[in-house]
Amino acid sequence: MFEAFELGRTISKEEFDAAEGPLREALLEAQMDLKASKKLAVVVIVGGVKGAGKRETLGVLNAWMDPRFIDTHGLREPSDEERERPAMWRFWRMLPPKGRISLFHGSWHTMPIVHRAFGRISNARMEREMERVRDFETMLVHEGVLVLKFWMHLSKKLQKKRMRAIEDDPLTSWRITKQDWENFERYDTFRKVSARAIQLTSTAEAPWILVEATDHRHQLITVGRHILEHLRARLDAEGTPRPAVHALPVREVAEEVNPLRVLDLGGRIEKKDYETELERWQGDLARLTRTKAFQKRSLVCVFEGMDAAGKGGGIRRVVAALDAGRVKVVPVAAPTEEERAQPYLWRFWRHLPRAGSATIFDRSWYGRVLVERVEGFAAQADWMRAYEEINAFEDQLRRHGSIVAKFWLQISQEEQLRRFEARAETAFKRFKITDEDWRNREKWPKYEAAICDMLERTSTEDIPWTLVPAEDKYSGRLVILRTLVERMREALEE
Amino acid sequence: MFEAFELGRTISKEEFDAAEGPLREALLEAQMDLKASKKLAVVVIVGGVKGAGKRETLGVLNAWMDPRFIDTHGLREPSDEERERPAMWRFWRMLPPKGRISLFHGSWHTMPIVHRAFGRISNARMEREMERVRDFETMLVHEGVLVLKFWMHLSKKLQKKRMRAIEDDPLTSWRITKQDWENFERYDTFRKVSARAIQLTSTAEAPWILVEATDHRHQLITVGRHILEHLRARLDAEGTPRPAVHALPVREVAEEVNPLRVLDLGGRIEKKDYETELERWQGDLARLTRTKAFQKRSLVCVFEGMDAAGKGGGIRRVVAALDAGRVKVVPVAAPTEEERAQPYLWRFWRHLPRAGSATIFDRSWYGRVLVERVEGFAAQADWMRAYEEINAFEDQLRRHGSIVAKFWLQISQEEQLRRFEARAETAFKRFKITDEDWRNREKWPKYEAAICDMLERTSTEDIPWTLVPAEDKYSGRLVILRTLVERMREALEE
Repeated sequence: MFEAFELGRTISKEEFDAAEGPLREALLEAQMDLKASKKLAVVVIVGGVKGAGKRETLGVLNAWMDPRFIDTHGLREPSDEERERPAMWRFWRMLPPKGRISLFHGSWHTMPIVHRAFGRISNARMEREMERVRDFETMLVHEGVLVLKFWMHLSKKLQKKRMRAIEDDPLTSWRITKQDWENFERYDTFRKVSARAIQLTSTAEAPWILVEATDHRHQLITVGRHILEHLRARLDAEGTPRPAVHALPVREVAEEVNPLRVLDLGGRIEKKDYETELERWQGDLARLTRTKAFQKRSLVCVFEGMDAAGKGGGIRRVVAALDAGRVKVVPVAAPTEEERAQPYLWRFWRHLPRAGSATIFDRSWYGRVLVERVEGFAAQADWMRAYEEINAFEDQLRRHGSIVAKFWLQISQEEQLRRFEARAETAFKRFKITDEDWRNREKWPKYEAAICDMLERTSTEDIPWTLVPAEDKYSGRLVILRTLVERMREALEE
Repeated sequence: MFEAFELGRTISKEEFDAAEGPLREALLEAQMDLKASKKLAVVVIVGGVKGAGKRETLGVLNAWMDPRFIDTHGLREPSDEERERPAMWRFWRMLPPKGRISLFHGSWHTMPIVHRAFGRISNARMEREMERVRDFETMLVHEGVLVLKFWMHLSKKLQKKRMRAIEDDPLTSWRITKQDWENFERYDTFRKVSARAIQLTSTAEAPWILVEATDHRHQLITVGRHILEHLRARLDAEGTPRPAVHALPVREVAEEVNPLRVLDLGGRIEKKDYETELERWQGDLARLTRTKAFQKRSLVCVFEGMDAAGKGGGIRRVVAALDAGRVKVVPVAAPTEEERAQPYLWRFWRHLPRAGSATIFDRSWYGRVLVERVEGFAAQADWMRAYEEINAFEDQLRRHGSIVAKFWLQISQEEQLRRFEARAETAFKRFKITDEDWRNREKWPKYEAAICDMLERTSTEDIPWTLVPAEDKYSGRLVILRTLVERMREALEE
């Protein structure tokens, strides 16, 4: 693959000088259109070997465009706050909001390539990581991010020469470390692994652009022109690229296989027994979150359910068992302005717990395949791709060591009506009933279809949904507590 | 002071049960009004010795109110991201937005008290810290935060008994550490230091409420009622408490002492000389930011100046000297929705650099005493208190080890006009000229008065303003680069 990029292409100083002015002007204008229209965000990744001029290229891009609307991210050692979350968390923090550009000096591709080149992970593992990267980038594109990836290529001979030159200059010698020479010794391995990684993550939506790094002028003009061309095209185009979908009819879920219908809602428990049981499970949960083992893990709970199904009450009983300083409850309502400028899942990533802590989501990322689907807030193409994206997100949590529990609280339509009416009567609960609640009620069958799809597509062996019969509040809460305790026990005693 | 809180006040179970229901209902209703009106944010601090039931109180508050709209913060070890910023940074991250409540289990008072009790800091230093805390809390109140501080008091004898009881219970024994017993041995010292700290930070705006912690029921009802009373009063009141100000006439700055008028704008430099000089200073700056010493420091630059004074051009020349991955440029425009829900300085705190990095503010917190003052966006009471708050903020940066440089770029009215006209002609700079720019121009004398006040009140020996004669772009940029290099040299060679 790289052979085609060892042709020694160059640009003369005259050619460069003639090209630079108009290119810079056009880039700056595109950047200002980007800022004004806020139609999309731009991610520019610069990869490649040491000495290939990555740092210089990023410096020139900052000089050509307006650095006030660009964020440049180097790949530092992760901070402790970053290490306590899934590996991608730190990149989610660096994503640009709509209207801005983020430049990445190294990115989510880097560590899998390095680990593979040093034999720390198997080839299969590296390839699996690259598949995840590919899915992540495809998601970014569908969420309105322009993803541009440049790979700066240098031949072995030239890399050595470049590294020597950097090392010999007292101003830059600090930039060549022992690690860099160790990497250089593995040039051939890196070349092979990188080629495979590039191949696996070159998609129609976010292709790699290989750049011969022999001549700085050629390299700069190539990168600049590519950015301009793609940015201009996206600014001038209508809408965001979306995956093709075949319009599917709303599924009729047969009564006998509809998990919501076959769920036995009948269990009831006396108040006295409930109180004894509740205390027992809360005590167990409290003990488990205080174990040494949990201090390296974290807990993520999702509460979904029809209105008035008792999510709030369930959450309160869980919170009561935990140290208040180690749990955060996130009520999911309309996204804020900063959240709307980011990919859909961003507003959930930002609330992920640190080690030894818990985050409880009162409604969650499933909003996209429930309310947004039913109400038509999300296009079909968008909610249809959400299942995969959600599974990938939760899988990252699991692989990081977070314990994920998802509860669907189920009540009958009759019980919901009773609770709505009761709420309307109780003074301090009145705030909870809105016209919207009554409207949502009318869409019960549509919601039921959406819920069935959700359960079918996102309940996995590792991260199953727990269907909570919530017709009786007491027994519903006990199911939640008991499930959490069991899940924690299983995870911590592995 | 504490003697009055060793009376052994108790509440019977019957009294408690009778009081709890109505109190809880009223608290929940107040919380919902808070959420709906978004008029203010609430900070509740719970301090006091170990065993005084702080954790239990926070648990009960979470149970009485809706935990979905409460954030509870325990005082953990600061993370590395927190240690790389001024000490208050981690508390700014924890401040609630309007409409929400933050509960603090320990707070900004805690560490100065602990350090003093162990003799690690002098009494004078502790008192100085408490003065800063007092100013911080006063600022919060003026920014629309209700600050409620509870100090849970226990006699020495009772504390010992409580700690023993916690230790003897297998479920809670982990909560008593060696450190806790070491603290207990210093009970008398802690009592004295705490009394002094409480005295110094009990203000009319944010008084401490001492609570006898002998009887849990008494303690809970006392805290609950205080929160209800204060929250209700603030919700029902009009507006935010503001400091009294005496309306001052706009100052006439005499020509001969007006720093803007006496500044010599005449320096000019030839392009060739400029390029040589620029390269020299950029090289020096690059070297300085790459020194080992700077990796423990950080750089904060502020660029202010009349429209078209050349802030953008100056910033680009600074950015060009730095590693793009270690510098962030923050263009200060209208605050976002999340920023508007926080105290004024919050949106600047969030961008403070990590160790070894720089943040450049293109316009800054000085907006409050410039544009917001002149245009009447901020009330007089608010911009008048801003000088002190800004000085306190920058002083925190300095004490943390950040290098702070503030540039005022000065041009004549004639030069501004020439640049406006030139911009209107150049295609790719046209975006920069708005009607607002022309309007601002008409307010030149008012801006000049505001600038003179700003320079006089916020230029300190440690963090001076640099007045940059920017009539000639080249020489202006050189002044900026040279100043930065000198400031860095001075700071790093200390």
